[in-house]
Amino acid sequence: MATTLNIGLFGFGCVGQGLWDVLHRTKGLQTEITRICVKDRNKLRPLGAGMFTFEQNDILEDPKVDVVVELIDDADAAFTIVKSALLNGKAVVTANKKMVASNFAELLELQQATGRPVLYEASSCGSIPIIRNLEEYYDNDMLDGVQGIVNGTTNYILTKLTETTASYDDVLREAQQLGFAESDPTLDVEGYDAAFKTLIMGAHAFGTVLRPGDVIRRGITAVSSFDAVTAKAHGHTIKLLSQSRIRDGHLTSYVLPAFVPYQDPLATVRNEYNAVLLHGAFSDAQFFVGKGAGGHPTASAVLSDLAALRYAYKYEYKKIEQGTAPSLTTRVPVRAYVRSHSADVVSSVPFSDVEVEYKSGANHYVIGTTLLESLYRSEAFADKRTFIATL
Amino acid sequence: MATTLNIGLFGFGCVGQGLWDVLHRTKGLQTEITRICVKDRNKLRPLGAGMFTFEQNDILEDPKVDVVVELIDDADAAFTIVKSALLNGKAVVTANKKMVASNFAELLELQQATGRPVLYEASSCGSIPIIRNLEEYYDNDMLDGVQGIVNGTTNYILTKLTETTASYDDVLREAQQLGFAESDPTLDVEGYDAAFKTLIMGAHAFGTVLRPGDVIRRGITAVSSFDAVTAKAHGHTIKLLSQSRIRDGHLTSYVLPAFVPYQDPLATVRNEYNAVLLHGAFSDAQFFVGKGAGGHPTASAVLSDLAALRYAYKYEYKKIEQGTAPSLTTRVPVRAYVRSHSADVVSSVPFSDVEVEYKSGANHYVIGTTLLESLYRSEAFADKRTFIATL
Repeated sequence: MATTLNIGLFGFGCVGQGLWDVLHRTKGLQTEITRICVKDRNKLRPLGAGMFTFEQNDILEDPKVDVVVELIDDADAAFTIVKSALLNGKAVVTANKKMVASNFAELLELQQATGRPVLYEASSCGSIPIIRNLEEYYDNDMLDGVQGIVNGTTNYILTKLTETTASYDDVLREAQQLGFAESDPTLDVEGYDAAFKTLIMGAHAFGTVLRPGDVIRRGITAVSSFDAVTAKAHGHTIKLLSQSRIRDGHLTSYVLPAFVPYQDPLATVRNEYNAVLLHGAFSDAQFFVGKGAGGHPTASAVLSDLAALRYAYKYEYKKIEQGTAPSLTTRVPVRAYVRSHSADVVSSVPFSDVEVEYKSGANHYVIGTTLLESLYRSEAFADKRTFIATL
Repeated sequence: MATTLNIGLFGFGCVGQGLWDVLHRTKGLQTEITRICVKDRNKLRPLGAGMFTFEQNDILEDPKVDVVVELIDDADAAFTIVKSALLNGKAVVTANKKMVASNFAELLELQQATGRPVLYEASSCGSIPIIRNLEEYYDNDMLDGVQGIVNGTTNYILTKLTETTASYDDVLREAQQLGFAESDPTLDVEGYDAAFKTLIMGAHAFGTVLRPGDVIRRGITAVSSFDAVTAKAHGHTIKLLSQSRIRDGHLTSYVLPAFVPYQDPLATVRNEYNAVLLHGAFSDAQFFVGKGAGGHPTASAVLSDLAALRYAYKYEYKKIEQGTAPSLTTRVPVRAYVRSHSADVVSSVPFSDVEVEYKSGANHYVIGTTLLESLYRSEAFADKRTFIATL
């Protein structure tokens, strides 16, 4: 192709500026950022004012723009932009996991109706090419498991917590100072961000399209040094894991802290790194590790989507199209560690098999087996001060 | 596509039988193995005789055959088959690293002349989708390094050697009994196999097409428990590494044993597993781990190539086409460990900077810096009993 790909960019934060930088240092890919739409009229920006607009339609209705790259924070506003871009005949590249996960079925319909592609490699695990690999490479390999460390903020916090004696609050503050955690870290530390990515990866891996609320999710805010020491005593570290598994033809998907044995490849993934472990019937285990966030790694995923658009690439959603996607179940056994200040809270979980029971003044815990559904419905799960991890 | 992809298969060893098995357990991919060409007329086979032929032209000249899958051992015979298949208008999928590496430029020309694709994901690192990722995903990311553990046999041997007190000969014998090493292990233990893969990955990563002899290569046959203990004392394990790096616009590619620090992700890759560590200007480090060999993992890579052929996929060789590929140099400094029974042999390497010098009755070694080219031309490099590792 000889023509230039004209990009209309929404948002000029960390990833937007990373993309600007990357595009200007890359040979071979003929692209041009035509216009950048931003919200704040008063913010100082590193480019001349002529590049910017505050009117979305300056991009959305510009016939010269071939592709809209959406890199804003607000998921609802982002979906409005993406919808309008597709209906105006433009391709879309986005990094917005919340927007993609919250509107997955609608995005499928819009792509079918308009014939225009939406690519979102940057939405999941930053620079790890996981969506493209699930979509392209594993489409005929009977995948039966996708496990991942898909949130860099929580992995950074858990790495520091398990490797030092610092408390959760101390480590969170440090992560905020270093820019690894937002001033409002809720989306990260409560597991919402990881649940969005779990949904997106699950749709491409298994063809099952969930809604965000379908993914059972619990965060790391209750984790304590006691939990870290207990995990260590059992030869484990603590990670926030995204887990999707096929068993007996049904899909189970959840985001929960997990005790991970030191010899497990996921245990070796430290700090802000992300990782995905795929298990297939034929390819056996495949393990991908890379930087999950940051301007340049995320921009490099956006870049690869832009490169793919040059040869008219679109996701084929083959596993969704086949119509044989597994249905979701929560009625599966899980091994879990449940630790609380209160023995009553711990005993609210109906364990069928108790391996360890520990009682002291301040900490009570049980390690045992229960149904995921029972765990989810227990008082312990609802209690913010209780720490729960799978094993 | 509604039509069936008709496959003519050459070879029915471990990978061929794995492919048969995988194709018959995969839904959705409409493929049929039309005929299997084998050499040995007297071998007992698990399928009816009607599936087999001993005449290559029964497949090569059959107009029903869309794609030739070549899974035989002999690289020269394989190239003749592949050439004939392309000239007869058939697509080709192959797992033969030696054939691909030894005829890379010719295969490019044949693909251009015939318009038919040759796909060879299975040639490098078994189930790790490395060629496709280099080709598709990293094409606009300025890659500057590809490091890998790309040979499962040597990694198995080195894992046992560094984790136990067994000798090289003992471990090799055990690997042969377990089927991880051939009865003639030369291609693996001398690094030829790894060099073929280094060449193939390098062509897709950087656009530089080398000949097998261009890749500096040395194997692991001289490794001893003394080396393993010395590495350990320095906080390292020993791996056979494929290394390609861009420095100052030039490419350096070699396969040499290496002392790898325990905290390096490559140190965690044990036994028959393979791994590739990519370093790019924007994506930072990306790490892929998976099974490098075996019937099913390799067959799963063949399968993904077959799936890609259904949508007319072919390698675009973009980095080669751009004509700006870096030229090869061996004039780069390397840190090396050189250990020999003879102090004279060790001192044949012109070290510019000696960090450690060790002399005892049976073992002499130096750790220092030298030019790769000087190391390659030294008496030590030519001496089969000397062990050399980079650091």
